[in-house]
Amino acid sequence: MGERKIIQTMWKHLETPSNMPVPLGDDVSAIQTATTLAVLKTDMLVAKTDIPPQMTMQQAARKAIVMNISDLAAKGAKPLALLAALGIPKTLTKKDIQQIAKGLNQGAREYDTYIIGGDTSETDDLIISIAAFGTTKKGNLILRSGAHPGDIVATTGHFGLTSCGLKILTEELEAPPKIRKKLVDTVLMPHARLKEGLILAKTGAATASIDSSDGLAWSLKEISQASNVGFTIDALPIASETIEFAKQHNLNPTELSLYGGEEYELIVTIDPKHWKKVQKVVTQAGGKLIRIGKATAKKTFTLKQKGKTVEIEPRGYEHFKHEESG
Amino acid sequence: MGERKIIQTMWKHLETPSNMPVPLGDDVSAIQTATTLAVLKTDMLVAKTDIPPQMTMQQAARKAIVMNISDLAAKGAKPLALLAALGIPKTLTKKDIQQIAKGLNQGAREYDTYIIGGDTSETDDLIISIAAFGTTKKGNLILRSGAHPGDIVATTGHFGLTSCGLKILTEELEAPPKIRKKLVDTVLMPHARLKEGLILAKTGAATASIDSSDGLAWSLKEISQASNVGFTIDALPIASETIEFAKQHNLNPTELSLYGGEEYELIVTIDPKHWKKVQKVVTQAGGKLIRIGKATAKKTFTLKQKGKTVEIEPRGYEHFKHEESG
Repeated sequence: MGERKIIQTMWKHLETPSNMPVPLGDDVSAIQTATTLAVLKTDMLVAKTDIPPQMTMQQAARKAIVMNISDLAAKGAKPLALLAALGIPKTLTKKDIQQIAKGLNQGAREYDTYIIGGDTSETDDLIISIAAFGTTKKGNLILRSGAHPGDIVATTGHFGLTSCGLKILTEELEAPPKIRKKLVDTVLMPHARLKEGLILAKTGAATASIDSSDGLAWSLKEISQASNVGFTIDALPIASETIEFAKQHNLNPTELSLYGGEEYELIVTIDPKHWKKVQKVVTQAGGKLIRIGKATAKKTFTLKQKGKTVEIEPRGYEHFKHEESG
Repeated sequence: MGERKIIQTMWKHLETPSNMPVPLGDDVSAIQTATTLAVLKTDMLVAKTDIPPQMTMQQAARKAIVMNISDLAAKGAKPLALLAALGIPKTLTKKDIQQIAKGLNQGAREYDTYIIGGDTSETDDLIISIAAFGTTKKGNLILRSGAHPGDIVATTGHFGLTSCGLKILTEELEAPPKIRKKLVDTVLMPHARLKEGLILAKTGAATASIDSSDGLAWSLKEISQASNVGFTIDALPIASETIEFAKQHNLNPTELSLYGGEEYELIVTIDPKHWKKVQKVVTQAGGKLIRIGKATAKKTFTLKQKGKTVEIEPRGYEHFKHEESG
């Protein structure tokens, strides 16, 4: 069974409360408390599938945090606290454990939060299962389901960097020193766009939002399904480093940008009448908001590039399938 | 490294917020929100060490919930929502996944809560990592650290049943039909003492509380360390079924009761001037509160039994060590 099949089976058997501020399948879960909305997220890092070669234990633990914070960021929720459930193989040394602890702490502190508890078990493979607890005001929560035809689609950064970085790390492809570090760092030291997510939530102008950890194409598909819209992408945000690396290795930069994974950029739809203001606020805070296209009533995925129009295949970056094919 | 060494190493490297309503190392973690206290807990079930033979997938998933609810119960926190991060081996069938989903739902609904989100990864061994989110009022939270000399020590049930049940399941020891089911059920279908925990929190009379998942002796040691008291146990709550099973197999019922594990009874200390009232309230609600001894200023563990006084060795039921010796 693939990951999504497993999740579907799970949902079929799980009852849910009548009042769910966030539907099942969105990035996080939420529950109404007295005055605020508690936003919950759990994401499990498994060494075998989630730790690329050359990633240190400290970086892996930090990444486990970033994975979870990124989902809170996409919903505009501020992290309040984290829990870490660890599955530790017998072979790990004290130094390994120290590195893991340092990485967890480093990740938490980067986003102004803390690990306040956890659990430790013995497992065959290293497992870091993080649970993140955040809050937001009810009206500020950005779901996947609010995009309307005509909304501007924007991203918080450029794409394709992690695809290239992974090729350097796993296939030992070469890259010029001046871009190699950036490509590899997006894999080893990813960043969650929390600042951008919190600003977007505050403006109230984002109609839908998702993080791009399953790839740009797949994440657009998720918004499409939840919001019942299509997308025309007329300015695919390919990073200049992606173009340079693709040229050197005769790779397709569009493919690298659409079907990469574990990029933690946010993909958001914005009401066009607020676009200029929102872009300005995000830019002033030191972030980026790059217009890449618009939402359409017709439920297709269209890419306009160099005068040509092609369909975007909504393929994803799915761990199980990735594993099976790799 | 043993589990506790690993946890100590973790703590050494983790910064914590200045205002922690629950110290590191208690059963749960908590964070102050606007009007209530958010109580967080994560506990990971690993098939290899936590699923005894004959336990079904559904029972295992339900148990993963009970493990977490039991810790909220010990602190007097009401569960509001649960997350489930699953590590699923490729070998699992759709029916297995259905059983897991049913067990998760069953466990959640038994304690009037829901699974509201989660994550799925591929792992070599089945892993069910639950994060529980509950709430309580600040003054109602029962820590491990509040016991005073002279407090009455009480438990919500009798002990030794899971030790016997595990021997039946893992060593294939026999038991008369009339007690076999009860002994085995305590292992396969454990129950968290949530009702009792919530009542105790409301009375305000419990000075310290812990669940007994690491065994009675070890749990007393935990309260001892956190509260700086010792204990004299003069009425060890050995279950009648434990006595019968021990007699049949020439086992020591005291050992079975003190050093079992995965019993989800609560062990609490009660201000003696409130004892009668508290015991009555718990009993009226259909629960039990059994007086087993008292807290002492002298930091020793003493067992008075059949006119003799012996020291209780504060051994625990530790998964890693259990694994190494078994």
